[in-house]
Amino acid sequence: MSIDMADISGKEDVLRIATARGAIKLKPETIQRIREKTLGKGDVVTTAQIAGILAAKKTPEIIPLCHPIPITKVDVQISVGNSTVTVESTVQSLSKTGVEMEALVATSVALLTVWDMVKPYEKDQEGQYPDTEIEEIRVVSKTKQPTKNSQGREQHETQKHP
Amino acid sequence: MSIDMADISGKEDVLRIATARGAIKLKPETIQRIREKTLGKGDVVTTAQIAGILAAKKTPEIIPLCHPIPITKVDVQISVGNSTVTVESTVQSLSKTGVEMEALVATSVALLTVWDMVKPYEKDQEGQYPDTEIEEIRVVSKTKQPTKNSQGREQHETQKHP
Amino acid sequence: MSIDMADISGKEDVLRIATARGAIKLKPETIQRIREKTLGKGDVVTTAQIAGILAAKKTPEIIPLCHPIPITKVDVQISVGNSTVTVESTVQSLSKTGVEMEALVATSVALLTVWDMVKPYEKDQEGQYPDTEIEEIRVVSKTKQPTKNSQGREQHETQKHP
Amino acid sequence: MSIDMADISGKEDVLRIATARGAIKLKPETIQRIREKTLGKGDVVTTAQIAGILAAKKTPEIIPLCHPIPITKVDVQISVGNSTVTVESTVQSLSKTGVEMEALVATSVALLTVWDMVKPYEKDQEGQYPDTEIEEIRVVSKTKQPTKNSQGREQHETQKHP
Amino acid sequence: MSIDMADISGKEDVLRIATARGAIKLKPETIQRIREKTLGKGDVVTTAQIAGILAAKKTPEIIPLCHPIPITKVDVQISVGNSTVTVESTVQSLSKTGVEMEALVATSVALLTVWDMVKPYEKDQEGQYPDTEIEEIRVVSKTKQPTKNSQGREQHETQKHP
Amino acid sequence: MSIDMADISGKEDVLRIATARGAIKLKPETIQRIREKTLGKGDVVTTAQIAGILAAKKTPEIIPLCHPIPITKVDVQISVGNSTVTVESTVQSLSKTGVEMEALVATSVALLTVWDMVKPYEKDQEGQYPDTEIEEIRVVSKTKQPTKNSQGREQHETQKHP
Repeated sequence: MSIDMADISGKEDVLRIATARGAIKLKPETIQRIREKTLGKGDVVTTAQIAGILAAKKTPEIIPLCHPIPITKVDVQISVGNSTVTVESTVQSLSKTGVEMEALVATSVALLTVWDMVKPYEKDQEGQYPDTEIEEIRVVSKTKQPTKNSQGREQHETQKHP
Repeated sequence: MSIDMADISGKEDVLRIATARGAIKLKPETIQRIREKTLGKGDVVTTAQIAGILAAKKTPEIIPLCHPIPITKVDVQISVGNSTVTVESTVQSLSKTGVEMEALVATSVALLTVWDMVKPYEKDQEGQYPDTEIEEIRVVSKTKQPTKNSQGREQHETQKHP
Repeated sequence: MSIDMADISGKEDVLRIATARGAIKLKPETIQRIREKTLGKGDVVTTAQIAGILAAKKTPEIIPLCHPIPITKVDVQISVGNSTVTVESTVQSLSKTGVEMEALVATSVALLTVWDMVKPYEKDQEGQYPDTEIEEIRVVSKTKQPTKNSQGREQHETQKHP
Repeated sequence: MSIDMADISGKEDVLRIATARGAIKLKPETIQRIREKTLGKGDVVTTAQIAGILAAKKTPEIIPLCHPIPITKVDVQISVGNSTVTVESTVQSLSKTGVEMEALVATSVALLTVWDMVKPYEKDQEGQYPDTEIEEIRVVSKTKQPTKNSQGREQHETQKHP
Repeated sequence: MSIDMADISGKEDVLRIATARGAIKLKPETIQRIREKTLGKGDVVTTAQIAGILAAKKTPEIIPLCHPIPITKVDVQISVGNSTVTVESTVQSLSKTGVEMEALVATSVALLTVWDMVKPYEKDQEGQYPDTEIEEIRVVSKTKQPTKNSQGREQHETQKHP
Repeated sequence: MSIDMADISGKEDVLRIATARGAIKLKPETIQRIREKTLGKGDVVTTAQIAGILAAKKTPEIIPLCHPIPITKVDVQISVGNSTVTVESTVQSLSKTGVEMEALVATSVALLTVWDMVKPYEKDQEGQYPDTEIEEIRVVSKTKQPTKNSQGREQHETQKHP
């Protein structure tokens, strides 16, 4: 059985948009510190956003069979809940293949960056992480939109999954 | 509030080991195809293992405040269950700081690589992923072991969290 | 004398395909182990394929004057002979410049990965490699094909060199 | 306040050219050695050119909110004056966004590479650099040119700043 | 004349610290917006800090003859003046060679990131940057400090250059 | 069969040196142009040396199961013969594992860079490369040398293979 990077040469350049979401479960005290911006390592939210944006651009380097595509927008939204921090990343590209992997990579790396920045507050006395967990990384939606050069076709084909 | 890469100059080089685990929920048919090795893109297990190993080495490039450390071993185990594929990554380093982020990055990227390779089987007719989900990424254990040069201290300090 | 990255701004986006081939000479026992999949480090063939695919995407980062181009397909075929393992890589891109360097980089890195995985079996008692050799890395063929947007021109211009 | 990678999906692919310039102030003896090519580490000019070209391609990896764009040309010119080495980099791309950051990154990295190669000659007895300084990194010009597909509009919009 | 990456095999692992500083000249209105955090692209200061930290770790990849060294700390301080933003980066490593290039790269990339984030406010009507300039990138200080394993030698050898 | 990055945690840090050599066969006219430095793209020798040095540092990123090690020296020698250009790369590291892969990667990438820079002179009228070939990439020697901290053991264990 051979490894195969799919041939997308014949596919059309279309505006493709994908959104992926995930969360990290943290201790209430850690959540409190993120809200109050009293974490020793600095601004978690901005750092995780930047890490996510940079990671989206690194997708073809990280995921072996992903194609290099010209990303035209990355948006990483981070919301701090009561017991979790949620990351939702949206990626756009005018390309021959979808961008759900880019959105998933951005989300995963933003969540991992949150973990890295709250390590001292999440570790117990033995240095373990009994409570910390990254959970429910999903593709929220995946869309194609007709470009200026391909009008006349249906406006877009999408469907949201909560 | 400033961003701060922690100063580890004064910490000791000790053998540090961390294991992280996570899972991806897939359709039964996809699981079946992975078992039977009938996926169009090729051997999911080996590809995910290699992606995980390469990603562990990329950790300081992906997670902004991680230090570059000399990884001495990466082991990515993948097990195919009934409705999930589970990844468990163990990283070792003789270094001044722990390797849990490296193990978490290896696990996350291996799971994302599984997703990438099963995309055609997981998508529904609208191109969405109603069932696919990465879940429960955790640090299973984190250990320090005395090196040849630091004998006499306690054997190791560890504790497993299932 | 100045270093110059060629100006390709005025060239046309055409489907470009290139195939490069090379081989690595190994001990008969090593070849036997690859066939029987009894190498300690794991599946040589899949690992070399993935390394080759990832390397093709890294070409503009590795070869100083190569342009970044949108690769649409990479295929790395590995065949195990009696005394050599042969790698043949084919790369496609819809781009302004050819992809022979990408195919050569994929082939070279796949061959180097084979070497890395068989080191313990190829080394002699002094730790040297008297028999191992990478040999005959060549461009097998280089083609242009008219795209949907440029029909009417000649079908393709190619020629095979054995 | 959220970090935002600008959405360029709707912008047109146009030939974009930018030139950036900067200088590094060096000791007269160091300048003399560069001219006479008697530096221990080798040919400063060619090394700095290559470092600049490679860095231009790395721009979206280095500058968090830069988009990945298909660079079609990089030209790094280095001139050795009496007390400074001047670098002038020109980058071209057929893309949806300008290339001034790419030209600035190429220029900055070429200047840093010059510094790295002349370290032994610039350091004083305490290992400090009292004289060395990178200065006046500027965008010299930024231009758009109509492509074959967008004729009829104005020829180009440019203006030079000395 | 050959290119030569210096041999540091015989040098001692010592704690090495270097600080580099530089500035970017901006329009008063842009400075005002940075202070008030009303820039469209988001938090300039945190983004530039993270870009600088990540770049310090990339130094051996960007500067051809730099050695890969285990950085133990990076600190990027950004201060907003009346007409300039100043960046001062300090890098530490327990290594065989100094870290001034790492500090210079961190400073340069943080300054370039500031530029990237204020582009819309610095451009004039022709899309040029008549006022923007990166200036006076210097090594402020370079130090060696005895490690725990090498006590008895002089405390440190440093000297500040304003 | 699992992929396995070997555990080197227990191995000793020793000065390790490896030399790898290979050649590229070129047309006599191309060789002539390299000698006379009349190639359009610039100084082949320096460019190939730098590409090789940078590639040696990238080895753990390119070869999946290679460990990241602190390279202390890379030397890439290029000699222009009558019908071939020969590259010989020597890499040193004070590390727990050998550096033959680093030397092989440096040599391979330097040879590929030569190819890239002579493309216009090697292509025939159909755009093919009937004569160009990379050949005989071998490990010339692999050595360990006792460090200052491990004196008393045998001087080194080496053996040359022509």
